[in-house]
Amino acid sequence: MADAYAVRRERLREHCSASGADAALVTRPANVRYLTGCAPCGATLLLTRERAVLALPDDLPPDDTGEHLLGGDLTQLFVPGEADTAPAAAEAAARLRVRDLAVEEHDLTVARHRAVAEVAAGARLRDLGETVERLRVVKDEHEIADLRIAAEIADQALSELLESILVGRTERHLAMELERRMIDHGADRAAFPVSVGTGTHSGQAAHQPTDRRVEEGDFLTVVLGARYRGYAVSTARTFVIGAAPAPWQVDLHRLVFRAQRAARETLGPGVAQQAPDQAARAILQAAGHSEGSPHPFGHGIGLEIREAPRLGPSDMGKLDNRVPVTVGPGVHIPGKGGVRIEDTLVVRPLEEGGPELLTITTKELLAL
Amino acid sequence: MADAYAVRRERLREHCSASGADAALVTRPANVRYLTGCAPCGATLLLTRERAVLALPDDLPPDDTGEHLLGGDLTQLFVPGEADTAPAAAEAAARLRVRDLAVEEHDLTVARHRAVAEVAAGARLRDLGETVERLRVVKDEHEIADLRIAAEIADQALSELLESILVGRTERHLAMELERRMIDHGADRAAFPVSVGTGTHSGQAAHQPTDRRVEEGDFLTVVLGARYRGYAVSTARTFVIGAAPAPWQVDLHRLVFRAQRAARETLGPGVAQQAPDQAARAILQAAGHSEGSPHPFGHGIGLEIREAPRLGPSDMGKLDNRVPVTVGPGVHIPGKGGVRIEDTLVVRPLEEGGPELLTITTKELLAL
Repeated sequence: MADAYAVRRERLREHCSASGADAALVTRPANVRYLTGCAPCGATLLLTRERAVLALPDDLPPDDTGEHLLGGDLTQLFVPGEADTAPAAAEAAARLRVRDLAVEEHDLTVARHRAVAEVAAGARLRDLGETVERLRVVKDEHEIADLRIAAEIADQALSELLESILVGRTERHLAMELERRMIDHGADRAAFPVSVGTGTHSGQAAHQPTDRRVEEGDFLTVVLGARYRGYAVSTARTFVIGAAPAPWQVDLHRLVFRAQRAARETLGPGVAQQAPDQAARAILQAAGHSEGSPHPFGHGIGLEIREAPRLGPSDMGKLDNRVPVTVGPGVHIPGKGGVRIEDTLVVRPLEEGGPELLTITTKELLAL
Repeated sequence: MADAYAVRRERLREHCSASGADAALVTRPANVRYLTGCAPCGATLLLTRERAVLALPDDLPPDDTGEHLLGGDLTQLFVPGEADTAPAAAEAAARLRVRDLAVEEHDLTVARHRAVAEVAAGARLRDLGETVERLRVVKDEHEIADLRIAAEIADQALSELLESILVGRTERHLAMELERRMIDHGADRAAFPVSVGTGTHSGQAAHQPTDRRVEEGDFLTVVLGARYRGYAVSTARTFVIGAAPAPWQVDLHRLVFRAQRAARETLGPGVAQQAPDQAARAILQAAGHSEGSPHPFGHGIGLEIREAPRLGPSDMGKLDNRVPVTVGPGVHIPGKGGVRIEDTLVVRPLEEGGPELLTITTKELLAL
């Protein structure tokens, strides 16, 4: 794996050279992790043509930094006390006579940018933009293997929950239970706070769990995701509590199920990024469900919960092979509840079997 | 409480006027919350002389925004889709003919700052700096009441854990258990990921829990905190597992206990910010424990885990009445383990009984 990180750094060097910068200062945590295999809180990576200097706060115990850090072009620079690592890395750049330093203007605050500019006095600062984010879009098979394990963990936690008694338990309890189970099954952590919505709260993408208790007849929407070795997945399912769902529940679930399947089926290399959202939205709108200002029904996912590519209704561009994305349309009817169904999938060509579904928990309307 | 927020906004207006700005754009989440009573993810507050415009992502269900939002000078501005609320609020500033707009350069990224500057074309941008952070330093009694409840929650979770069987359980399990218990007792969430360190991991301030199991004879260090209505506390305790602690454990615990008590006893209005750290450090150093590059043994705490005032060994300035701070020295001996003891206290004058201890779990060396 050490080699994989070195290859990624080499690709970033090529982008820098092409744009005229002789070094890059990478501060966004997911980007630092992508390029080095680790991202201690507050680390900054300086990448010059020959060297990679990882500036770290010096309060890290040595066992938090793997051996892969020490190989090849990569060296560590410990920054004392509570000092910011970005100016410290910029000082290193000045010592290495960097003249054109590309920084992540979408990550550095104005104040940190100023501090970097001051110490890198000889260097001209320019914007690296989202170069590393673009490198991260297409995953290698090691990354996809980690995503697959993250999905297995989330599915496992969910399946265990479905076997337990739900009526009478609060949303907050169920959410905590799912987070604990994911950690039990080997997750680094929950990828984001688990959302559990019952009754009128069901169907939302990011409902914050309350003390409402699960009741007979409720829709129950669970949105959860695990993080494994840094890689995150996201999945949502909606179930009904009690033996017989009401007709409106059956209809609404069937509708969202159809919309989600239509979106999934669009996925493929060369397909427009807006295609899955449009496919789902067309079905929901035809049934009379439309939002005033649409939120995309999916997005890229990996080291960050939301990352490139964007999959909004107006996003241009095309999907590539080996890009993990979420597909998760939903309908929420205020005062009544709703349905949300989300998967994480990897874009694959048809000759490899089409999109690879990572989150395999059933999407049928289970009555629990 | 709506009045309290209006009073806070009025104080910020006074600061802006004094500095020549006719409006402030507040983006740092804790600052938005301090000034409005709520801080939905991604909200921005525009504060002009007459008005307060809270720009919000429009995917928030209405019940996430309390009624206090609608009173007095405060209005809501819903920003469609996934658009950034900061430029949207800056557009509102332009419509209100703001000429000098103070922004939080320590919070806004360079890219967002540019987006704000573009839409606020008629306005000159300047740095608001940490003005709101400074307003937040001295707490009112409502804030302290919330901190007190947060501390009770953390103490309660800890006391329940101490009654359970610990040997054989993993650090990760114990950490999750504490997080769950805090939520059970009414916390919004854990204030930060709970740290549990056993054996050689004990004594660290931010050890990430592993699958190591608690063994007889271990030191066990727990660092935890609850968040209640946005307000956070932090506390750490170190216990020993088994009937009889070893002599070195008794000695080390006594030493850190003395250092922590000495630091606590310095606290008072008008006392130098560096005093508690120096008091603790002098005792640890006299016993032969010194760090290469010292990390402060405490800091201010409130809506953020670490906020002003700084309490490092070289921080000038004096403490004020009604400032909550943490005091948490520790010693970690690599390969052996260590002790950390931390409290959250509120600075109070002697005539009111001196520093108010919020986290009241015993600091004795319990053998569990």
